[in-house]
Amino acid sequence: MPIIQSVKGTRDFYPEQKAFQNWLYAQVRAVSERFGYQEWEAPYLEYLDLYAAKSGEELVKEQAFVLTDRGGRVLALRPELTPSLARMIAQRAGEMTWPARWYSFGPFWRYEQPQRGRTREFFQWNIDLLGLDGVRADAEIIAVGAAFLKAAGLTAQAVTINVNNRRFTQAKLKELGVPDGAIASCFGLIDKRPKMQPSAWEAYARELGLTGEQIKAMQALLEDREAWRGFEPLEQLFESLEALGAADMVVFDPTVVRGLLYYTGTVFEANDTAGEYRAIFGGGRYDNLVADVGGDPVTAVGFAMGDVVVELVMEKYGSRPVLPASKSQVLVTLFDDALYPQTAALAAELRQAGLNVELYLENDKFKKQFRFAERKDIPVVAILGGDELKAGQVALKRLSTGEQIAVARGEAAAQIRAWLP
Amino acid sequence: MPIIQSVKGTRDFYPEQKAFQNWLYAQVRAVSERFGYQEWEAPYLEYLDLYAAKSGEELVKEQAFVLTDRGGRVLALRPELTPSLARMIAQRAGEMTWPARWYSFGPFWRYEQPQRGRTREFFQWNIDLLGLDGVRADAEIIAVGAAFLKAAGLTAQAVTINVNNRRFTQAKLKELGVPDGAIASCFGLIDKRPKMQPSAWEAYARELGLTGEQIKAMQALLEDREAWRGFEPLEQLFESLEALGAADMVVFDPTVVRGLLYYTGTVFEANDTAGEYRAIFGGGRYDNLVADVGGDPVTAVGFAMGDVVVELVMEKYGSRPVLPASKSQVLVTLFDDALYPQTAALAAELRQAGLNVELYLENDKFKKQFRFAERKDIPVVAILGGDELKAGQVALKRLSTGEQIAVARGEAAAQIRAWLP
Repeated sequence: MPIIQSVKGTRDFYPEQKAFQNWLYAQVRAVSERFGYQEWEAPYLEYLDLYAAKSGEELVKEQAFVLTDRGGRVLALRPELTPSLARMIAQRAGEMTWPARWYSFGPFWRYEQPQRGRTREFFQWNIDLLGLDGVRADAEIIAVGAAFLKAAGLTAQAVTINVNNRRFTQAKLKELGVPDGAIASCFGLIDKRPKMQPSAWEAYARELGLTGEQIKAMQALLEDREAWRGFEPLEQLFESLEALGAADMVVFDPTVVRGLLYYTGTVFEANDTAGEYRAIFGGGRYDNLVADVGGDPVTAVGFAMGDVVVELVMEKYGSRPVLPASKSQVLVTLFDDALYPQTAALAAELRQAGLNVELYLENDKFKKQFRFAERKDIPVVAILGGDELKAGQVALKRLSTGEQIAVARGEAAAQIRAWLP
Repeated sequence: MPIIQSVKGTRDFYPEQKAFQNWLYAQVRAVSERFGYQEWEAPYLEYLDLYAAKSGEELVKEQAFVLTDRGGRVLALRPELTPSLARMIAQRAGEMTWPARWYSFGPFWRYEQPQRGRTREFFQWNIDLLGLDGVRADAEIIAVGAAFLKAAGLTAQAVTINVNNRRFTQAKLKELGVPDGAIASCFGLIDKRPKMQPSAWEAYARELGLTGEQIKAMQALLEDREAWRGFEPLEQLFESLEALGAADMVVFDPTVVRGLLYYTGTVFEANDTAGEYRAIFGGGRYDNLVADVGGDPVTAVGFAMGDVVVELVMEKYGSRPVLPASKSQVLVTLFDDALYPQTAALAAELRQAGLNVELYLENDKFKKQFRFAERKDIPVVAILGGDELKAGQVALKRLSTGEQIAVARGEAAAQIRAWLP
């Protein structure tokens, strides 16, 4: 019988992969809490209706994993978090302490073609500052992103956070004579540019009704890295980032508009400078979303970061840590099968003393027991033979040096601890 | 427009609920690693086929959340972890270091009627010892469960771990003259007994072909708490538990057989002694499962614990901890809007020093800023006015005592740390 396969686009986390995910989550948690954010989590299943309003057609109609429950209601495995955030905030609006700083780290699902840097089941860090408008809030959220990149060992040479403001782009498009009704399509046009051939892109722009002159002016705008000067919200944003010590990683980029429809002001994404990968994280200000799911208006700014691209970028720049897959600190060997009860009691004592203890349960050759400790990188081995038992002692061996000593039973835990790496 | 509702049987984790879940996960992690177990995780989506083999008909046909992907394949949101474990072990059998001690903590879905102690989307701790047979391994897994209950503040007065062995029950049923073909149905009969009226249960037993005499003998067996004496695997199990210091919570219970079909030996579950709730955790030995999904045979013992019942039991016995929803250690207030850049720089400095710092971004009345710190239980407030700035100082206020002092800027972090609870 063949082994049943895993589902395409999902990942198996063996202990070595899980160790990295735990490390990543620990960085996310530390950085979020360093800025005063509280952890929360939404359900993984929501009614499809929740996304229909605002997530953008592609995300809902083409990418959501959808199922019908036994009552005939249509559910979705969440493709993004923000609509759930809006729902939960709307439910509790009266009891909230404003502003709210919230983050979470959990699974999401999108039916996309799996490829390098993209899976169908993935984890995402979401972080949002709710109930504050103004670019100071935007700057804080971007500073959180910059602090994370530093914690991940990524420098401004490897990664930049590229910032724009949709209102800036909108004002510029208006200056070019683009009618109000075509602005949203123009955002889509700008968003799709990196993924299209220049000629195809121009043809698409003409389809949207832009003139040759407008297209040229738009192209010039998208290449002008100084265009932000004089646009006050962007000038204040960069001043705030300077004060927060986060400016070194942040650059203005007029090509960034973000795909989702609900952004209303500042938008940004972190990219590797070589342009090899998709965005590490992306986000912006979305001031209308909570009202869109039925609550009172709440201003908000936030971003989301998947767990797949960041790992690839860290690998590329050599900052992905090598982590132990086992946290065991001592292997209590079974020297004599007849002494199993006493050996088990020793393991229990060492656990009581706060050590992570693996107990060898089988009457195997001693060499095999040591090989097990070596393969699992357990730094210390404890041995309880008849002589040690009589003398009230334990023999301890430090595997990195080969050093072996006998210590009084009551001092074993302290000696093991002294030997830990 | 009404607020879109959450899906029935799912839970919203606001920061206070998430804080408890994090606490629970931290206990799970600490106890698992104390015994040498490594964390891993499986996908949340699997092909339905994976469960069809062995999970029991009810779990698959009636309780699985099922969806069809765009390629027409039938997927399930995982209703349990063990089939994924078997799949992943089978895939890597040649590279594994045996025995393997693995645990995980993640979401599961079952379409059951939501009620107190039961949700449709829930989290589960799974822990398994793979590649070892014998009751020493069974005893270790049970000792892990006992260590968790102690970490959760639950005593032997509140909770017991009730143990049986399916081979013991099988031998007893054979002694009663139950034919081999009816043994599996008899396990089902025993499993359903607590949920049925005695008369309905007897009628069901007769339907299965049991005689009145056999039913009486079976009832006597299910009430005999001393019946394990003389059955060697159970005697050895209790000796092992004694050696591991875990015997005080464990009792023999012939009524425990566990519902899932794949258990082959020791079975157990943890129950509140008042019998008010469903099992806190349950598990046992399952030696055939890996081979059933297409791998080489691997012996295994493990258990699973949901996150819902344990919280209710902890609440009942007063051991559920009260946890802070915010981890912020200091609020940097905005004393003077003109000093926002300098105030932001102070926040950045304190973060650099390793403190969790919330920065007040709005030009609100000072009283409002203090009320914010109080509502969020932030222990220290920092104030940077023009005078402090000139003097190179920061004013700090400890909210629990009202104490306020001015310190040199470079000493602010140390002073805040000294005031933390």
